[in-house]
Amino acid sequence: MTVLALMRHGQSEWNLQNRFTGWWDVQLTEKGEAEATRAGELLSEAGVDFRQCFTSVQTRAIRTLWLALHSMDRCWLPVTKDFHLNERHYGGLTGLDKAETAAKHGDDQVKIWRRSYDIPPPELEAGSEFDLSKDPRYDGIDVPATESLKLTLERVLPYWNGTIAPVLTGGTNTIISAHGNSLRAIVKHLFDVSEDDIVGVEIPTGNPLLIELDDALKPVSARYLDADRAKTLPAIK
Amino acid sequence: MTVLALMRHGQSEWNLQNRFTGWWDVQLTEKGEAEATRAGELLSEAGVDFRQCFTSVQTRAIRTLWLALHSMDRCWLPVTKDFHLNERHYGGLTGLDKAETAAKHGDDQVKIWRRSYDIPPPELEAGSEFDLSKDPRYDGIDVPATESLKLTLERVLPYWNGTIAPVLTGGTNTIISAHGNSLRAIVKHLFDVSEDDIVGVEIPTGNPLLIELDDALKPVSARYLDADRAKTLPAIK
Repeated sequence: MTVLALMRHGQSEWNLQNRFTGWWDVQLTEKGEAEATRAGELLSEAGVDFRQCFTSVQTRAIRTLWLALHSMDRCWLPVTKDFHLNERHYGGLTGLDKAETAAKHGDDQVKIWRRSYDIPPPELEAGSEFDLSKDPRYDGIDVPATESLKLTLERVLPYWNGTIAPVLTGGTNTIISAHGNSLRAIVKHLFDVSEDDIVGVEIPTGNPLLIELDDALKPVSARYLDADRAKTLPAIK
Repeated sequence: MTVLALMRHGQSEWNLQNRFTGWWDVQLTEKGEAEATRAGELLSEAGVDFRQCFTSVQTRAIRTLWLALHSMDRCWLPVTKDFHLNERHYGGLTGLDKAETAAKHGDDQVKIWRRSYDIPPPELEAGSEFDLSKDPRYDGIDVPATESLKLTLERVLPYWNGTIAPVLTGGTNTIISAHGNSLRAIVKHLFDVSEDDIVGVEIPTGNPLLIELDDALKPVSARYLDADRAKTLPAIK
């Protein structure tokens, strides 16, 4: 049995301000840092011998992992950072306050952008202050102009299959520190969740989801380590 | 021209207590954390586009790097951690207070252990509380029982030649966050310092040493970024 821990980053500055963030790089709040440290304590208490970590190239997920590893006394674990694990790109909504966006476009339209499986928000305009195509961390990478959840999955899954799954198949217990939607992509794949249902799956911040996997990487058990802040999990089929 | 930054970790708890540390894993003090953050600011101000980092598997060097990367807004840089960059192993002196050790063994003997090139301290006794052979980070690795500076070099240099040098030769500006003696090994190699002279080379904590290297990885220039806390550098030959 191999163990996978999925960890969504702690509260960020734009979570707090209720702004669409996506690929934009924002810092953790003090509360987010505390959540990350607590997540590490929970991972320690779980008693699993983790040996590999993956995260995105976004500061909030990386620092959540670093703070967790520090409280686990496991700073030395190898960490691979890759943009494939980034949050969904929110396109032209990036930087907008969610209430303002609803006032402008209507609640129903915002709900469609946030909760539909395959309808992406409008593209980020060229020359936007949130354009990341010149950011050095994305050298040689086609930064998307917007992403639906479906497009996010189509980015995450090849990386899962090509890089993460072989590590797990080799029996290495692994931590992934990432984002609401990149983790949804992994949960959809592992638990075989339908397109309709995955948009309703909420992954709480800083609460590691511990999944035991069999040799075929099928989930055998799954639980949130902070039971008091757990959300409903997809059924194991 | 490729740029290499050598960074010695910030003050650790045992630096403060004046105890021999070596491979034992200790935390940074608050002062050490502040030094690391400041080192990141200095690296930012230097305006170099770093793209790769190396560090040891010891918490004080890893966290010095993490704190520096955070203050550089470069958390996303790839980081490779390897035991070859660990501090010199102080053998049976590990954990001892330096004044007590001098009282017990005599100043001259301690000076020989600390400042000779090729005389290692006594071996760590089997069953010592400081025995790291069961530490999971050293799975599959022969943990030394003691090391002279010469033995430290013989550990560091194959890693330099096999892993770090090819990255630099490829033109990638690189940060190495490590320890007094593993950095001495690199400085001895780069500046062709004699065995007699290298034991007198002091590398200050949290003060990045910025070295410009030519295509053959020969130093062209070298300077400490915090000039007020600089130490004398070996001459460029």
